[in-house]
Amino acid sequence: MKLASLKNGTRDGKLVVVSRDLTRYTDASYLVPTLQAALDNWSRIAPHLEALAEGLDHGSVPSERFHEHDAHSPLPRAYQWADGSAYVNHVELVRKSRGAELPESFWTDPLMYQGGSDSFLGPRDPIVMADEAWGIDMEGEIAVIVDDVPMGASVDQARQAIRLVMLVNDVSLRRLIPDELAKGFGFFQGKPSSAFSPTAVTPDELGEAWDGGRLHLPLFVDLNGKPFGRANAGVDMTFDFPTLIAHAAKTRPLAAGTIVGSGTVSNKLDGGPGKTIAEGGVGYSCLAELRIVETLANGKATSDFMRFGDTVRIEMKDASGHSIFGAIEQTVEKYEG
Amino acid sequence: MKLASLKNGTRDGKLVVVSRDLTRYTDASYLVPTLQAALDNWSRIAPHLEALAEGLDHGSVPSERFHEHDAHSPLPRAYQWADGSAYVNHVELVRKSRGAELPESFWTDPLMYQGGSDSFLGPRDPIVMADEAWGIDMEGEIAVIVDDVPMGASVDQARQAIRLVMLVNDVSLRRLIPDELAKGFGFFQGKPSSAFSPTAVTPDELGEAWDGGRLHLPLFVDLNGKPFGRANAGVDMTFDFPTLIAHAAKTRPLAAGTIVGSGTVSNKLDGGPGKTIAEGGVGYSCLAELRIVETLANGKATSDFMRFGDTVRIEMKDASGHSIFGAIEQTVEKYEG
Repeated sequence: MKLASLKNGTRDGKLVVVSRDLTRYTDASYLVPTLQAALDNWSRIAPHLEALAEGLDHGSVPSERFHEHDAHSPLPRAYQWADGSAYVNHVELVRKSRGAELPESFWTDPLMYQGGSDSFLGPRDPIVMADEAWGIDMEGEIAVIVDDVPMGASVDQARQAIRLVMLVNDVSLRRLIPDELAKGFGFFQGKPSSAFSPTAVTPDELGEAWDGGRLHLPLFVDLNGKPFGRANAGVDMTFDFPTLIAHAAKTRPLAAGTIVGSGTVSNKLDGGPGKTIAEGGVGYSCLAELRIVETLANGKATSDFMRFGDTVRIEMKDASGHSIFGAIEQTVEKYEG
Repeated sequence: MKLASLKNGTRDGKLVVVSRDLTRYTDASYLVPTLQAALDNWSRIAPHLEALAEGLDHGSVPSERFHEHDAHSPLPRAYQWADGSAYVNHVELVRKSRGAELPESFWTDPLMYQGGSDSFLGPRDPIVMADEAWGIDMEGEIAVIVDDVPMGASVDQARQAIRLVMLVNDVSLRRLIPDELAKGFGFFQGKPSSAFSPTAVTPDELGEAWDGGRLHLPLFVDLNGKPFGRANAGVDMTFDFPTLIAHAAKTRPLAAGTIVGSGTVSNKLDGGPGKTIAEGGVGYSCLAELRIVETLANGKATSDFMRFGDTVRIEMKDASGHSIFGAIEQTVEKYEG
């Protein structure tokens, strides 16, 4: 099933079940008001939501037209956003561009940061920033929402806890990050509010593309209406989601509704950095990677980060070309606070 | 007023108003079920809670005996836990023990990390860990809970947004932290679930000890029943809470219910590291600082981190010696997962 949180003037939105083709929705808020409330009691609530999803597909429950731009992120605010960096290829490129070696442990010990989760953007909300000079970048990612995960959970236990899958735009401020990371405490100002796809879907909606740990489909990232990235999220993902979840749960339990992210989707080409789509490659899921590839090739980055007015669109399509999650589509705007 | 969330089998507990002397409480959950729900609508709800607090002090509302061990942390789970490191003295000591200089910018640009906020411990819950070798440490801190803070808020706007004050035990796993920070993405496994004091109090409860930005009272930290720290939270706090909040809000808004922490409370002595209480000093608020002082003095740390069975108590008393927030008191236990 596919779930969304419609904007209704509240902080958490209204929970609805969306049809497989993303054209209709039926209200689920009489069962449980919000997605977090459903996740708080998933084993009891999910069967009722599944019944609504079936009724929606059969036309046996009341429904209305679903508009993606009416949706919040599925969890407009969450109790945890733990973002991995599972495409180690991407991390290696970042290091290489700084002339640094990738520590061997990076291939066995996942990188993960604690992200801010109190105020996500909606999938069609603008990215409002005070200053272009901060180096505004998108990061196209996959994320899962988990049920309660006990401390010290095994990878198998972690796999069983995955409830929903969605897309992410992990907005990053590239020029704030180096100074911030140099301070040693990780990201804060460099990672403003992220946005998620209009729907979060149960793994069974993904069919064979979901193998229990990775999502084997290309992530469509378009910049100003032009194809920018088509990297396959199932390829070169060094750590699968169960491994990332188990990493997060090593020293503490994860509460239901925790979101775990994959990090920027990135594919190698013949063992090295990928090419742009114009050059016949699969492109990239963030501008930073393109700039690194440019730097490695030409000694300097020729592409800029996002400017006011630029638009990024992030989407994923099934084998028949239909959008699975709906699209994240965000334009960068100047903050006049 | 003083607010608490009583354990009642739900994830968020039941909101109650507690008497100034911490002996009685009155149910507030008929007004609003949880503290987060109150924070979501503070300007409308707070006056009703204040009326209950007054009724409680006058004996005009029904009340029951308040037991601190029945309380969750005031927010058993929160949408954000942003912990500063405002006692720069402490940071300088950590660096000195590694033979490193403190960058000059650390005196003007606050250090802050994004903490996990999905599963806090109750103030009397054990600290359950799988392995003593992880270097289990307490960190006694002050924290504030804020209302909505707009992106780019000024320090004055930030000051106006402070709604509640409480104590924290920011549990840290010292021997996991160096490798984790070396990876560059900040803390994750090294910062397991934190615990907060049994009550969160409005700033007016603190009288003159609260100057709008700092809390000028000693933080009582006892280890296994013996005085370990009496550092004054108002002394050597380089960045006050409004400054920390404005730092957190530079590139994104903060949602109501965001918790902002001070970092480990730490006082200098004559411009240098403090002494233990036994030596006539004010002691420390974490074991790491004692170990650093030992290392600087003797070339190696002689005190250990917490072992299974060890107990830490963190409390703050008003001028008359009465507990303000109630006590955090936690024993370290072995996790049998």
